[in-house]
Amino acid sequence: MAAFTVHTSAATSLYSPAGTAILLRSRSRAYPTTTTIRVSCSKTVVIGVAADSGCGKSTFMRRLTSVLGGGAESPRGGNPNSNTLVSDTATVICLDDYHSLDRAGRKAKGVTALDPRAHDFDLMYEQVRAIKEGRAVEKPVYNHVTGRLDPPELITPPEILVIKGLHPMYDERVRDLLDLSIYLDISNEVKFKWKVQRDMAERGHSLENIRASIEARKPDFDAYIEPQKQYADAVIEVLPTQLIPGPGDDEGKVLRVKLIMKEGVEHFAPVYLFDEGSTVNWIPCGRKLSCSYPGIRFAYGFGTYFGHEVSVVEMDGQFDKLDELIYVETHLSNLSTKFYGEVAQQMLKHADFPGSSNGTGLFQTIVGLKIRDLYEQIVARR
Amino acid sequence: MAAFTVHTSAATSLYSPAGTAILLRSRSRAYPTTTTIRVSCSKTVVIGVAADSGCGKSTFMRRLTSVLGGGAESPRGGNPNSNTLVSDTATVICLDDYHSLDRAGRKAKGVTALDPRAHDFDLMYEQVRAIKEGRAVEKPVYNHVTGRLDPPELITPPEILVIKGLHPMYDERVRDLLDLSIYLDISNEVKFKWKVQRDMAERGHSLENIRASIEARKPDFDAYIEPQKQYADAVIEVLPTQLIPGPGDDEGKVLRVKLIMKEGVEHFAPVYLFDEGSTVNWIPCGRKLSCSYPGIRFAYGFGTYFGHEVSVVEMDGQFDKLDELIYVETHLSNLSTKFYGEVAQQMLKHADFPGSSNGTGLFQTIVGLKIRDLYEQIVARR
Repeated sequence: MAAFTVHTSAATSLYSPAGTAILLRSRSRAYPTTTTIRVSCSKTVVIGVAADSGCGKSTFMRRLTSVLGGGAESPRGGNPNSNTLVSDTATVICLDDYHSLDRAGRKAKGVTALDPRAHDFDLMYEQVRAIKEGRAVEKPVYNHVTGRLDPPELITPPEILVIKGLHPMYDERVRDLLDLSIYLDISNEVKFKWKVQRDMAERGHSLENIRASIEARKPDFDAYIEPQKQYADAVIEVLPTQLIPGPGDDEGKVLRVKLIMKEGVEHFAPVYLFDEGSTVNWIPCGRKLSCSYPGIRFAYGFGTYFGHEVSVVEMDGQFDKLDELIYVETHLSNLSTKFYGEVAQQMLKHADFPGSSNGTGLFQTIVGLKIRDLYEQIVARR
Repeated sequence: MAAFTVHTSAATSLYSPAGTAILLRSRSRAYPTTTTIRVSCSKTVVIGVAADSGCGKSTFMRRLTSVLGGGAESPRGGNPNSNTLVSDTATVICLDDYHSLDRAGRKAKGVTALDPRAHDFDLMYEQVRAIKEGRAVEKPVYNHVTGRLDPPELITPPEILVIKGLHPMYDERVRDLLDLSIYLDISNEVKFKWKVQRDMAERGHSLENIRASIEARKPDFDAYIEPQKQYADAVIEVLPTQLIPGPGDDEGKVLRVKLIMKEGVEHFAPVYLFDEGSTVNWIPCGRKLSCSYPGIRFAYGFGTYFGHEVSVVEMDGQFDKLDELIYVETHLSNLSTKFYGEVAQQMLKHADFPGSSNGTGLFQTIVGLKIRDLYEQIVARR
């Protein structure tokens, strides 16, 4: 870890595009200089979560904060449009808050929100580093309703900081601050089905418009977002099912989800099925466990992902009974649970969350447990 | 079990086709009447092994007697052409000894050795029943060299009697005496490859002759031998590999072997892989275990076989290192071993036996262990 230094010049030069001065909160205010250095240096574990779908209180973040204990809410007495979630141990910040171009600015310059030119990576780096080093910061707030930057909000160093958004692994300096990086990879096919479901049914958009809006985003997405996959320690990949033959499940409800885990990451032991380092296909539904159509299939194996050794656990299909979930949990290893059935308990607790019956919910919950484990290992080592 | 009775009339009416009187050995000679009834009733566990390849000291029998402890040999001081194998606990008799038509007789009547008309099932039943009930018998001896019946040999009731040959499950009365029945099922493709290998290379037969001799046997085989599969508690099915793409491994050296185990058989708990009652595909070769081409693949599942519920464990490929064998053994359950690594130890002990590097050796060894277990459970229950 870098020595604890505050570059005042850097701090004072950080301005939001709207002209609001964003200062790194002076350490002398919150923490006496001498103790700050020893106690809080590297105290905050930083997790990066890259996803296409913008920020907001996503399901994954709610699952994660639930695993970490305690409910998550917006900062008290703050901006009602804050994108931040605060729980007892974790703070989730949305990287949209580091927009250097607001909606009008992006429109004027013909730049999408996916484009790095719309983001202030210098400020992102400085503030994430400051939090990791134990200093509070005044973070900008991007208002998704107005499309403009609101006055900043105070972020004090939590035990776990999650930076979630489009570019957590884009900037090398920010990337180097991450203790674990996660990429949520929704395949184009599923993304399209989901968008059709939401935008056509709920918002009355036409199929052509939906397709056009996805196509319009694609070049920037491919150029700036997707390449971050190569830096991810864990990828949750969401694909159409292979259990239903033919042209596929039209509503995209039955999903095949992969959890791709990089090998050799400190404090992060990949989950496995039955026999670590081998290749396994498993249909748990059978004599002891009955499942409704189209059933459940698991796969486990290893390979390379962008040149890195990885282990992969895959689930196709969905749970329709509690039995199935517990049965599956029993046969997975390295889950980082603290008691028998913790995965099932977490998923039942949030049975109303999207994906609770399939691999998205399962693997999000498991990644949450792995993050808790990683945090506890880092703390224990100190 | 039937009450202990000796039908003297039946005993004295049993004659070999060659005219030699074959008497059920009088119980008063070997065992006093009163104790015989209580001590030896159902003492002998009877195992039937059906296989096409004739009798002789087959590999499976040598593996079985090895598992049961002690070497197997022909009866001491007896006919050097005896087909019987005697070990400390088990006696293996060859059902060819119950030929009612000798070679000349079969030729004269135009009947193959596969045809039930060439066998004396009444005598087979009487003698197997007598042994099972604790009485010694004078069993005929079919001389494979001369093709005729030699003078009978004395068979005293062993702890385990294995009746091996073409028709152990053909006759309902004999079938009902079996505590476990096994069918060795070599697929036509593999049978042909093996025959080509042996008869062409070693005996100079032509490919056409080999094919013709297989074809000639097929109708009787299909009519009288194969239907016994439906009565088998365990089937070892030998098939060509699926690991090598294309027209296949020409020498038939790489094999895919299935162990099909009937459910609900008393004292016989089917072997399983990882998760009982589910469906699993497993390639053990990977990060922890390296294998040479074409690798090893296991499958486990369940289904029906001639209308019976069965579990199936399949191995495709071959072991080329001790590591692999022990690794695989560790991951199979319900093996009925008495100590860690017993399967591997048995296979290593007989590394020179055919099939020691593939599923035939593995599953023969496992079936041997299951037979030992079944015997011990039956003894323990008494």
